[in-house]
Amino acid sequence: MNVTIWNENVHERTEEHVRAIYPEGIHGALAGALADVGTVRTATLEQPEHGLPADVIGATDVLTWWGHVAHDDVDDAVVGRVHDAVLGGMGLVVLHSGHYAKVFKRLLGTSCSLRWRNEGERELVWTVDPGHPIAAGVPQPIVIEAQEMYGEHFDIPAPDELVFVSSFAGGEVFRGGCCFRRGRGRIFYFSPGDQDYPVYHHPDVRRVIANAVRWAAPACGRHPVPDAPESPRGWFE
Amino acid sequence: MNVTIWNENVHERTEEHVRAIYPEGIHGALAGALADVGTVRTATLEQPEHGLPADVIGATDVLTWWGHVAHDDVDDAVVGRVHDAVLGGMGLVVLHSGHYAKVFKRLLGTSCSLRWRNEGERELVWTVDPGHPIAAGVPQPIVIEAQEMYGEHFDIPAPDELVFVSSFAGGEVFRGGCCFRRGRGRIFYFSPGDQDYPVYHHPDVRRVIANAVRWAAPACGRHPVPDAPESPRGWFE
Amino acid sequence: MNVTIWNENVHERTEEHVRAIYPEGIHGALAGALADVGTVRTATLEQPEHGLPADVIGATDVLTWWGHVAHDDVDDAVVGRVHDAVLGGMGLVVLHSGHYAKVFKRLLGTSCSLRWRNEGERELVWTVDPGHPIAAGVPQPIVIEAQEMYGEHFDIPAPDELVFVSSFAGGEVFRGGCCFRRGRGRIFYFSPGDQDYPVYHHPDVRRVIANAVRWAAPACGRHPVPDAPESPRGWFE
Amino acid sequence: MNVTIWNENVHERTEEHVRAIYPEGIHGALAGALADVGTVRTATLEQPEHGLPADVIGATDVLTWWGHVAHDDVDDAVVGRVHDAVLGGMGLVVLHSGHYAKVFKRLLGTSCSLRWRNEGERELVWTVDPGHPIAAGVPQPIVIEAQEMYGEHFDIPAPDELVFVSSFAGGEVFRGGCCFRRGRGRIFYFSPGDQDYPVYHHPDVRRVIANAVRWAAPACGRHPVPDAPESPRGWFE
Repeated sequence: MNVTIWNENVHERTEEHVRAIYPEGIHGALAGALADVGTVRTATLEQPEHGLPADVIGATDVLTWWGHVAHDDVDDAVVGRVHDAVLGGMGLVVLHSGHYAKVFKRLLGTSCSLRWRNEGERELVWTVDPGHPIAAGVPQPIVIEAQEMYGEHFDIPAPDELVFVSSFAGGEVFRGGCCFRRGRGRIFYFSPGDQDYPVYHHPDVRRVIANAVRWAAPACGRHPVPDAPESPRGWFE
Repeated sequence: MNVTIWNENVHERTEEHVRAIYPEGIHGALAGALADVGTVRTATLEQPEHGLPADVIGATDVLTWWGHVAHDDVDDAVVGRVHDAVLGGMGLVVLHSGHYAKVFKRLLGTSCSLRWRNEGERELVWTVDPGHPIAAGVPQPIVIEAQEMYGEHFDIPAPDELVFVSSFAGGEVFRGGCCFRRGRGRIFYFSPGDQDYPVYHHPDVRRVIANAVRWAAPACGRHPVPDAPESPRGWFE
Repeated sequence: MNVTIWNENVHERTEEHVRAIYPEGIHGALAGALADVGTVRTATLEQPEHGLPADVIGATDVLTWWGHVAHDDVDDAVVGRVHDAVLGGMGLVVLHSGHYAKVFKRLLGTSCSLRWRNEGERELVWTVDPGHPIAAGVPQPIVIEAQEMYGEHFDIPAPDELVFVSSFAGGEVFRGGCCFRRGRGRIFYFSPGDQDYPVYHHPDVRRVIANAVRWAAPACGRHPVPDAPESPRGWFE
Repeated sequence: MNVTIWNENVHERTEEHVRAIYPEGIHGALAGALADVGTVRTATLEQPEHGLPADVIGATDVLTWWGHVAHDDVDDAVVGRVHDAVLGGMGLVVLHSGHYAKVFKRLLGTSCSLRWRNEGERELVWTVDPGHPIAAGVPQPIVIEAQEMYGEHFDIPAPDELVFVSSFAGGEVFRGGCCFRRGRGRIFYFSPGDQDYPVYHHPDVRRVIANAVRWAAPACGRHPVPDAPESPRGWFE
């Protein structure tokens, strides 16, 4: 399997306390988490075409996406390319503040708004679908000592499969592990993870992301985006 | 609309502290909450046929169900009658410990098991579908000062619509407001409510239950349970 | 209830055989079908802002949408306004070739591609959810003598509720009656209807559309599109 | 993977024309279709405990089920054992007239009634979810020359995933490829197949069943049926 890890990579270059947590960037931490899943490539915003030219997208089975402060700087042509690829079968794993990524909003059609507060609170990630492959091998609950709070209402379409629901020390809840299917592609959104906390070094979080990448791999190959075909008279002729 | 409120009515007759909270029984408290919704009748376990003979079920648009210690005492013939009625269009609102009612388990097909702890903890009921009619007019979140904790994993089929998710002071989460459709009938499960706490006097809880009863009313009338019909040669002949 | 019927109104103005079927336009035929549902207004492409200025959208409970040859001529500002209104609670009923309307694609996030053939074939519309309010009062199946064929694969997200599935004389099937919920808004897509056939004069088709408009009305009022709110420290303070 | 194929095996023993089509029984034909999927075992009604004692069920990853005239002869203890196993993670693939099997009805909670006619009509099986692993490698549509008709309304809960919809020469449609998740187990219902036609020798039908068995394998192991656990004071202590 070919995995491409996309990262905005802005906080890590501009804020020392983030660089201290993620000296190789968030993409570097994720590359370590996914080393056993397949062949891993990374791509970042500052690269030409954000590191996602057509041949890279064409050769990617599953793309992971992390962005936060620079969603608007992502070129619409690249967004369209990723969108088309997902509809044609490429898997997409969207992480944390990627809920506001252009491509996620375009795939889901809603505002993807949520409630938030950055106070380093304890997050508990509860499995609500214990037979789901993305939940394989994780404890009930996953305990993350310090996290940004994300809370409901999260303005997404009802997920096709809901895997995890989090609670926070402040009392909020969040549907933080959601599967969507769009076109031939599988999408998983996973909320834990922030540049201010070492969440992507947490072994259970890494396990979930690895499970999700395996789950999101195309089951029926990659295809062009469908275009309305006129059918001959009688399907069978 | 004709509403029938079914209550086991055991705790209220045998435990003084419960009678102090619900002097008219839980069914009495609910009858008050539903007075504006339609014509309300109550029925309890100790009555002949548990107060649910065929003519009562036949004349009921929506049935609410509360049970706890005496699930096994509910006669299978009555369970079958209620089950058939739901498949034929009658609405069913199942409350709190009714998750273990025979008819709920028979309709859902799973164990309906959950995690629990009775320590009088604060429950917050968060709306995750703010456009849903069952959530109309409730605050975000509903605050219940003292409740029994119900936590995940709740072993139910994925709800057709998920309206509320609760958190508890101990950190657990629970899918406490779930819609299901079985046959022509609508089912709503709502977890708040316990004989040990005055939850059914809480105005927001009462509002949710009234909303749910309105939502569960049959949209296309009442029908017999379908039985496999052999079709003539050509549907149109 | 305030209903606004939007129609592209191009075929009716440019093709005599269409004008013969719909002398008042498709919007005129639909206005007749919805006269009992509420206060009906019509709007068409050639009007300023396509007849959908902010005050009209603001005063609309449910909008119906018919377009075909001029999807690209719909102004993006109007598309954005309708999109926002749906997320905020306005109902939307999309008809037939409206599957390719900009706003439908933006709400669903997929290509909305399908298979088609215009040979005047018999369509049978089967109810697969007989308890659904949109199916109230229709025969099993609805028989439409002559129709354009729409066939699978229809590239939409899995509907939140599937109400109708059609078959065509050529053997194709189509998920032609689909409910979606996006934000606080309800969306119903209904495939029967084409400018070349008198489908919108068919009493069962008219009944379905009237049912759908009633179903799509906002249950919890109209709201602005949500924007990520930062929460205070502790939800309760 | 360990696969157990269960077959009623009555028609094959009592009707010569069925034996001519399935000289090894339907279970024998299916065993051939699944030879590449894993280690295959067969079990039939007339064996002690119907060939499904506890150790066989315990060692089965996925069970396939075919029954028709003898549903009532299946012992309730065996039904309960299979039901529990599914809730605990075992996959179940239910074929054709198995829609009326006790265990299928118990898992789904509805009547599972449908419309039918046995006239040897052409069935077309259309893929409505072309990215689904159960649809991998099948043509659009699968053509089955002669089949018993199964038509809507099929009284099942809304499937968690809808993969195939069939049309029949008489004009009916049927949701013939449906995924359900109950407890930790995955269930796939596939309608093609009847004792009167050589459907289980059809290469595309065999491919679907093989795909389904792979899909239904437990993702998170096998577990006992959950029983409501009381939690300690504070989940974390």
